[in-house]
Amino acid sequence: MPERLVVIGADAAGMSCASQARRRRDQDDLVIVSFDRGNYTSFSACGIPYLIGGVVDELDDLVARPVEEHRRRGIEVHLRHEVTEIDLDRRRVVVRDLEDNSERAEGFDLLMVATGAVPVRPHLPGADAAGIFGVQTLDDARRILDALSARSPRRAVIVGGGYIGIEMAEAMLARGMEVTLVEQAAAPMSTLDPEMGAVVADAMRALGIEVRTEDAVVEFESADGWLSGVVTESARLPADVVILGIGDCPNVTVAEAAGIPLGDSGAIAVDRRMRTTIDGVWAAGDCAEKFHRVSRRGVAIPLGTHANKEGRVAGIDIGGGYETFPGVVGTAVSKVCDLEVARTGLKEAECRASGFEYVVATVDSKTRAGYFPGAADIKTKLIVERRTGRLLGAQIIGRENAAKRIDALAVALWNGMSVDEMYHMDLGYAPPFAPVWDPVLIAARRAWEQVERRA
Amino acid sequence: MPERLVVIGADAAGMSCASQARRRRDQDDLVIVSFDRGNYTSFSACGIPYLIGGVVDELDDLVARPVEEHRRRGIEVHLRHEVTEIDLDRRRVVVRDLEDNSERAEGFDLLMVATGAVPVRPHLPGADAAGIFGVQTLDDARRILDALSARSPRRAVIVGGGYIGIEMAEAMLARGMEVTLVEQAAAPMSTLDPEMGAVVADAMRALGIEVRTEDAVVEFESADGWLSGVVTESARLPADVVILGIGDCPNVTVAEAAGIPLGDSGAIAVDRRMRTTIDGVWAAGDCAEKFHRVSRRGVAIPLGTHANKEGRVAGIDIGGGYETFPGVVGTAVSKVCDLEVARTGLKEAECRASGFEYVVATVDSKTRAGYFPGAADIKTKLIVERRTGRLLGAQIIGRENAAKRIDALAVALWNGMSVDEMYHMDLGYAPPFAPVWDPVLIAARRAWEQVERRA
Repeated sequence: MPERLVVIGADAAGMSCASQARRRRDQDDLVIVSFDRGNYTSFSACGIPYLIGGVVDELDDLVARPVEEHRRRGIEVHLRHEVTEIDLDRRRVVVRDLEDNSERAEGFDLLMVATGAVPVRPHLPGADAAGIFGVQTLDDARRILDALSARSPRRAVIVGGGYIGIEMAEAMLARGMEVTLVEQAAAPMSTLDPEMGAVVADAMRALGIEVRTEDAVVEFESADGWLSGVVTESARLPADVVILGIGDCPNVTVAEAAGIPLGDSGAIAVDRRMRTTIDGVWAAGDCAEKFHRVSRRGVAIPLGTHANKEGRVAGIDIGGGYETFPGVVGTAVSKVCDLEVARTGLKEAECRASGFEYVVATVDSKTRAGYFPGAADIKTKLIVERRTGRLLGAQIIGRENAAKRIDALAVALWNGMSVDEMYHMDLGYAPPFAPVWDPVLIAARRAWEQVERRA
Repeated sequence: MPERLVVIGADAAGMSCASQARRRRDQDDLVIVSFDRGNYTSFSACGIPYLIGGVVDELDDLVARPVEEHRRRGIEVHLRHEVTEIDLDRRRVVVRDLEDNSERAEGFDLLMVATGAVPVRPHLPGADAAGIFGVQTLDDARRILDALSARSPRRAVIVGGGYIGIEMAEAMLARGMEVTLVEQAAAPMSTLDPEMGAVVADAMRALGIEVRTEDAVVEFESADGWLSGVVTESARLPADVVILGIGDCPNVTVAEAAGIPLGDSGAIAVDRRMRTTIDGVWAAGDCAEKFHRVSRRGVAIPLGTHANKEGRVAGIDIGGGYETFPGVVGTAVSKVCDLEVARTGLKEAECRASGFEYVVATVDSKTRAGYFPGAADIKTKLIVERRTGRLLGAQIIGRENAAKRIDALAVALWNGMSVDEMYHMDLGYAPPFAPVWDPVLIAARRAWEQVERRA
């Protein structure tokens, strides 16, 4: 009698897990059944802004592996099925078929929770109006595309200036709309420090986006059954479509109700093999807590690359192998049109929250030798421990492949390097690719000068 | 009575040294006198192919800091002055003024040897013909530019397929010439492994460059006082201009004659503070040996970024401060048109020479999410120690900012990472910047699979 693995969620984490488990255990040994409330498996949520902006042509392009492919490999997948309850004592889940709202129980021996994240929705008057969209799933993407083609909206208001917010601002701009972004904080991109976020805001304004900072939505207005405007603390903004980008949180409602323990971050607590504290239950992806290697705390960071890696680790464990997930350093890259934004590690506020004393160096440089055509501006900020010079975090804003330069810093951070050693690192140099002193090296040197002065 | 520092060579290493020393010791304390046989200070030799190809407009654009600027800061610079002898006993150098060939002695208390590298010139019949150019100094660049405008050559033959060779092939192509590259080895780019070099060769052929591998020049032919052809082992190639790119070697003739000890690499032996074994004598830049952190051997790697860093270290030491140069990992980036090439660490032959047993993983991937427009091919090769999985070297060939991805690998190598840990590194992910599994991570994972299998 084979064991039965139930996988809740058929996206990156769930299907990476299922694939690995299947690769290591055949169907006589392990039955794998997955439920997902959406219509798609293994899709790239990060690609949605580019689909909506018209950069990516087809919705199906964002599906890395369609449901048929999983089924062919011996993974049973039920789409439009929502798991509404996990019963750990009876080892079963309750599943609702969203087509007919029927419910049934499905037993499991092993359980993988890959329920992802859910977008935060504002509890504001009018927030349920037609024309207000989250950006989370391909079903969301389809709804937005349908609205764009059916109604040809002219004015878009983006609520929230995080990654989704700035990427959707670009998308709406590409669609020819007037775009306004409303951000509660002093600057968009709260994953950066405020003065870096302000640089992003200025660049967005230069692109023609109205960026309203320190402003908050208080109400959504409708007319004729469709959104007509957004009322903020300081203005009434006409709007034909609203995109919500105010963040998301781990989707742990069902897991929490079942008694699967959460970490301090609010995501499901897991060990290095992605095992929850409940025997035979794993969690991975946006719903699972990640160990942050710099703060040494549990964090909830929704990101496809983590979900893929974690799901794979869980699947190897379920499959009888050994693999561990070593944690994250908080690397993220994004862009608005040609402005690229990247960060890794801790920002200043996060350093303070972790008890670090730090110094900062911010350097304006170029992406190529100064005399080389196309040399673009790049601003590099490093945050380092005041006494030791150990790198704690980095932020980059620039153009022309500035963002991926964060990787060298992410690897340095991963290894706990001090800027004292970093500024002599042997990074690639040639005039089309970097100045003779790479921006990363200059920033490290400047940061070290701060450390020496204040030690 | 101030001390007197003589700096031989007024390019990157020499002037970085002089600047640092001057910053820390004023003219009452230290007189700084520099001699250089060329006409320029602090220039970017790496930029010469782009000047000749017309990408960079003016020769002066390649001068990072002109002689007047150094003089204003209290550094005495004598251009067109060649140091022909170092007398360590009498603490003086013999200097020849190249304008009038007069010689004089100049005393020193402290000596900085920053004589750079000299291009290898083939000892072949006809090798002194007009129309055959090295690419080393701005004076070389001016001679080439003069020849291009005076003679409008149609056919260029590049001898040697190293960095200079491939970059000059691009430059000559940009000038509208028919370009043939002659390379003795089985593939160009001998800093890569042969099968990676073959990929470069194919890409160069696709650009319209005739790449002749396993062929060697045996003679240069002239007519009417100018180069007319190149005779190789297998063909007679008509040519109006020849570019020599067969490498360079440390320019140590004068230092060696004076008894300043060289390392096994043939470059001047230095300690971490760039001090030679002779008291009061420093060396830095292309003429100085570098410690290779992977092979743990002394190497001669001519590269502007090393020269700048080393010169600075020497200058700080001379200035009474403390700074060390921690060595190199052999990182280099280059391009031919839009094909980018990068490497770090040891190639296979170098691993063998250092006694490493290794395994290899080569991965074909994309620079962006596969569905994202502009996703370009990128080939990533990792060489890792067979038993431990420790990274030993990496090579990347690709397009669209593929090359600088070597930096993450260079930092990993710097820290002695094993691919076991590397494939979970938190590198920047978003669809415009990388697939969900970054090529570097995939390559690391594949390499680790080799290690497990063969351990």
